[in-house]
Amino acid sequence: MPLLTFQNPIRFDFGAVQKLSGALKREGIERPFLVTDLGIRASGLLERITDMLDNASVATIYDGTPGNPTEEAVNEALQSYQESDCDGVVCIGGGSPMDLGKAVALMALSGGPLAQYDPLQGGNKLVKGVAPLIAIPTTAGTGSEASLGFVISMSDGRKLTFANANFLPKLAICDPELTMGLPPHLTAATGMDAITHCIEAVLASPVNPPADGIGLDGLWRGWQHIRRAVEDGNDRTARWEMMMASTEGALAFVKGLGAVHSMSHAAGRLKELKLHHGTLNAVILPTVLRFNESECAPAYLRLRQAMGLPSDADLAREIEKLNADIGLPGGLSEMGLSEDMISDMVPHAVNDLATMTNPKAVSADDYVELYRSAM
Amino acid sequence: MPLLTFQNPIRFDFGAVQKLSGALKREGIERPFLVTDLGIRASGLLERITDMLDNASVATIYDGTPGNPTEEAVNEALQSYQESDCDGVVCIGGGSPMDLGKAVALMALSGGPLAQYDPLQGGNKLVKGVAPLIAIPTTAGTGSEASLGFVISMSDGRKLTFANANFLPKLAICDPELTMGLPPHLTAATGMDAITHCIEAVLASPVNPPADGIGLDGLWRGWQHIRRAVEDGNDRTARWEMMMASTEGALAFVKGLGAVHSMSHAAGRLKELKLHHGTLNAVILPTVLRFNESECAPAYLRLRQAMGLPSDADLAREIEKLNADIGLPGGLSEMGLSEDMISDMVPHAVNDLATMTNPKAVSADDYVELYRSAM
Repeated sequence: MPLLTFQNPIRFDFGAVQKLSGALKREGIERPFLVTDLGIRASGLLERITDMLDNASVATIYDGTPGNPTEEAVNEALQSYQESDCDGVVCIGGGSPMDLGKAVALMALSGGPLAQYDPLQGGNKLVKGVAPLIAIPTTAGTGSEASLGFVISMSDGRKLTFANANFLPKLAICDPELTMGLPPHLTAATGMDAITHCIEAVLASPVNPPADGIGLDGLWRGWQHIRRAVEDGNDRTARWEMMMASTEGALAFVKGLGAVHSMSHAAGRLKELKLHHGTLNAVILPTVLRFNESECAPAYLRLRQAMGLPSDADLAREIEKLNADIGLPGGLSEMGLSEDMISDMVPHAVNDLATMTNPKAVSADDYVELYRSAM
Repeated sequence: MPLLTFQNPIRFDFGAVQKLSGALKREGIERPFLVTDLGIRASGLLERITDMLDNASVATIYDGTPGNPTEEAVNEALQSYQESDCDGVVCIGGGSPMDLGKAVALMALSGGPLAQYDPLQGGNKLVKGVAPLIAIPTTAGTGSEASLGFVISMSDGRKLTFANANFLPKLAICDPELTMGLPPHLTAATGMDAITHCIEAVLASPVNPPADGIGLDGLWRGWQHIRRAVEDGNDRTARWEMMMASTEGALAFVKGLGAVHSMSHAAGRLKELKLHHGTLNAVILPTVLRFNESECAPAYLRLRQAMGLPSDADLAREIEKLNADIGLPGGLSEMGLSEDMISDMVPHAVNDLATMTNPKAVSADDYVELYRSAM
């Protein structure tokens, strides 16, 4: 299939990962810095990919990415990048290695500290350069490979979203083959991340019809195939379609996201809980769908149409049913969150970048109620 | 609304044309070459736009664009561009001035003759540079402002499609205000060009789901608003939505187009008839929809859904009804074409770039039959 070029070039198809070696040459990366995590290494995926490299011997590998990438891990990786005199980043993994790799690529050429690049504080003016970066997703959910954003848990307890056109990978290589071994619970959780991206993007307040179209197409694919991908990880069609839904989710969220992501980010900061971002999104989504509905009746009709549901279907209820079918928790309390944590999370949700584009204004009091009803 | 950036940056909204002066500065264009046609000049639109320019005094104007831009006109315009030592192109008008302006921008930096850039003959390797170009559509149909292609009637009788990422305008300024004065018959004919782009792109054979999503969104908007825009040219919502459908049509046809366009191009070459491209598309579309249907049942379901039609609706019949409602011809013979012209058109249709991406293989014999039934 042809190169997709809506934000950055995307090589998308079974076997696409074989393009990595040529892509490194084209991007002039001679000493690549491979960012991944221990799960990817243990699965054998890292080795499968390095085996394809002509210059694997000169690659430096950082496999210490935590589940929610932290500023500490970014700094540790950056030091390794600099010590090995690397000249480009290759991210291999889910959203965490991709986001960490983006932060390293930024700081390698623009310097630190990372916090200065907070876009809400005018940080984009300080971006002087970003090392070339190639992103290879091994899950179908984050879409970070096609996104100009990344999210890091900062040392001061905030979870910051960075966004700049220069953070787009020079190339995304989306090979659904790499997701074939993903276990059902991760297929479900990451798949719901993709579906949440599509839904929140379509509902986000900015006007961007092409992004709406892409988000609805991603939702159409994701909704049809997520149960199949969870039930049978070897279903190649379902794996292809889920990876496309993931990529389309990220292309769609150039519009922005909404309160689901604000709440997820605020909960994902809690280091001791190590909560999975996609699972948080899945669990929070029904509550926010009920909250937003009064502001978005026409968009809800289009969402129902893309999902093949009757025009009066209860969207929130349908997501709850899906979550149950694919084995995701029924509420935040099942994930270890409790009411006493709400007051800590709310200010972070209020200040999250995604709150600005939620289709309905969300106050701190609203977030208290939303967390309560999502428990 | 935010800048749309799926292929090139697009400033889209009422009043967006006020961004032209700043855009010229940003692109470093000091001596702009304004490409337009006599209709735009007569309508007063050209003057409205030049009045906004700080450097209008140094602008060179070419208003001789013919209805289907010819190689002769391109060469004439290029000479004027060079004599005035211009350093960038601003296209103001429908598809014809935009396509002619793209050809001038290419030849200004890469030299002639134009025919050498035929992409089917490896011409893209010869593209050395393209002068900066800003596109300002005054119709809602062609989408050339967001497209990397342009079409020229060559002196040897061929109608050639050129396509290269460097032909994308540096900026598109889509201001629906500029279409408010478009008369009903041009609103209808150009609107059907946009709708045809969306439909043919969704049906085109390459795999590109984001483009499908954008095409379906454009069709959804176009189908809901074309009758309104034709009936009441002052309906601002309808004008906005039709211009968005037009832009989305072009974003979608990065996938490619199909036999409707091959047949339209082959007929549009006939200089003595001066046939309107959008009208040709509208008239030919039902015939090609009947021809392709057996190959594209799932895509037809999605088209019907985007148009809000029952799942068993006869798409071709619906287009025929729409054409009749908005005053377009019922067949090619009403436009002055006759059966004896078919043998001249067919080889051109067969060799048209769009034939390669039609969802069903089309032979010369098929084209004979298609032209006959579209008469």
